[in-house]
Amino acid sequence: MNTPVRVSPRFASEAGERGLIERIRQRLPPAPPDLVVGPGDDAAVVRPDRGALQILTTDALVEGVHFDLRFSSYADVGHKALAVNLSDIAAMGGGPRFALLSLMLPESCTLEAVDQLLDGLLALAERSQVTVAGGNITRSPGPLVVDVALTGAARVRKLLRRSGGRAGDRLYVSGAIGAAKAGLEWLQARTSAQAVGRQDRAELYECVEQYRRPEPRTRLGALLGRTRAANACMDLSDGLADAVRQIAEASGTGAKIESTSLPIHRAAAAWFAERGADPVALALEGGDDYELLFATPAKSKGRLRAVTRLVRGLPLTHIGELTTEPSIRLVRDGAESALPRGFVHF
Amino acid sequence: MNTPVRVSPRFASEAGERGLIERIRQRLPPAPPDLVVGPGDDAAVVRPDRGALQILTTDALVEGVHFDLRFSSYADVGHKALAVNLSDIAAMGGGPRFALLSLMLPESCTLEAVDQLLDGLLALAERSQVTVAGGNITRSPGPLVVDVALTGAARVRKLLRRSGGRAGDRLYVSGAIGAAKAGLEWLQARTSAQAVGRQDRAELYECVEQYRRPEPRTRLGALLGRTRAANACMDLSDGLADAVRQIAEASGTGAKIESTSLPIHRAAAAWFAERGADPVALALEGGDDYELLFATPAKSKGRLRAVTRLVRGLPLTHIGELTTEPSIRLVRDGAESALPRGFVHF
Repeated sequence: MNTPVRVSPRFASEAGERGLIERIRQRLPPAPPDLVVGPGDDAAVVRPDRGALQILTTDALVEGVHFDLRFSSYADVGHKALAVNLSDIAAMGGGPRFALLSLMLPESCTLEAVDQLLDGLLALAERSQVTVAGGNITRSPGPLVVDVALTGAARVRKLLRRSGGRAGDRLYVSGAIGAAKAGLEWLQARTSAQAVGRQDRAELYECVEQYRRPEPRTRLGALLGRTRAANACMDLSDGLADAVRQIAEASGTGAKIESTSLPIHRAAAAWFAERGADPVALALEGGDDYELLFATPAKSKGRLRAVTRLVRGLPLTHIGELTTEPSIRLVRDGAESALPRGFVHF
Repeated sequence: MNTPVRVSPRFASEAGERGLIERIRQRLPPAPPDLVVGPGDDAAVVRPDRGALQILTTDALVEGVHFDLRFSSYADVGHKALAVNLSDIAAMGGGPRFALLSLMLPESCTLEAVDQLLDGLLALAERSQVTVAGGNITRSPGPLVVDVALTGAARVRKLLRRSGGRAGDRLYVSGAIGAAKAGLEWLQARTSAQAVGRQDRAELYECVEQYRRPEPRTRLGALLGRTRAANACMDLSDGLADAVRQIAEASGTGAKIESTSLPIHRAAAAWFAERGADPVALALEGGDDYELLFATPAKSKGRLRAVTRLVRGLPLTHIGELTTEPSIRLVRDGAESALPRGFVHF
């Protein structure tokens, strides 16, 4: 869009370089007044919010690492590529503003596939009031890559860092955990020789949707920041156990989590149990849940009640506390043990 | 850095996920005061310049498409990944500020290779006063990908759009053209059975360096914007012919280029001629030159002289004019013909 486009020979006859960019430009909604220069110049130009801090994040989805086109549609991939970035802005307590879209397209990717990818991405952008300001398209000799860079805005005193927690703060998590992991496992099992279990398909389908199209907690994150209902916040992209550990370490505290309080997705728990695994351990370790973990001081109870009303329908569950005692513990059947390390990527 | 890191098993024993991020963080210079939150949280947070517009750009280098590790070192790739983005900010008349670095690392990429890539990128970042604010690291099942997103700042009335040119403006180009193309051709010929010619290697080496480590015209772009010595500007990433066409089309003018004025790199011209090709055509079409093309109105002659003194050592060559007559012409041996279409990517 802003930068040199090198696309696959496959696109040459169908649309050509400028045609492909034009195709994307035509899909974009009318530009808001703070987008001064949109796609078509060397770079995009925006007017930053007066007096606001700017949040910057980037996250890529790589075929064969973060998604498998047997399990996700191109529209799912477009949705998720923006969702994982929205989740980062939400976890800082900010509101998202401008996205840059960097596409690396393999030969196998048709124009229709690009259109579908944009369907998923632009629908979520519209709902999230995000403007696609520019980007870059290139050919990929390997996997499909969708890399998004996203800006957001927050007021100075409203920023939610990982390090803002204090001993005594209550820990809350939004939504349900373990669903994305169960959804992916079910998709993988379905395509293998392995039996897929006797569970209710409709309930597991919720888990599959959670894996394919996670709903970033954009509104919750912005509200937690704006109202100061939270001191610290982080998203669960690497699982709840990892998030608890990171907030506690960055805040210089310990943490204690109550296993019976964990909002494990019902169908996910049943799926884990059915295949003989421990639902608590898997839900704590499972990555790809884009829920928020946050720490709320006792004095902010009232503010949190207000936030809870405003995000009606999204459960916020009290799962434990930040503690003076520096260890990170899980209370289970009355006994304390070390919290699992969280999802390990390698 | 800000976002989930999924790295190759190869890094597990050597450094681990956090180790790899920590390794990068330790390489970063002390953060400037306008970087409020650097690597290590969900996202980076910066304090935008008061009253300034913000420029956003992203550009990726993909192994096998934009570079070949037989011809470029990892340090070259790191340098160029930032350089191509700096060139976009310069072409808008802005000054660069914050970079997000998105790395997709194949199994074959060792920790030493990542270090070298950072050497090249961070050295250029320091010289350009760019702060690496965050980023993302992931495994790649295919090529090495380095995707950079870069912000810059410019004042409202100082922005250089492609569309700002007027009939009668003089067209100037910085530096020399055709060098990157000649450098790449020489590298390719050297590894093939083809003879590499009798040319002076030292001079061709300048072309090779231009291909491997293009010098973005950061200072020139910022000066052209700040002084309003130019009306319109664009970088030559897709070649001079393409840039002339794009500025003229966006500005609603034609253009006339004088072939004898073109600052074709001497060794490149000799290389093209030696292999029986037309140096003018190749220099016009050759991509990967990160020089600037800009349009200067007659009344700004004095300003341009001031800029010329300030970028001492960098030639700015008058190559033609924007015209009322809408065609895009090349004057050669007294005869006019249509300017070549520029580098075609597919």
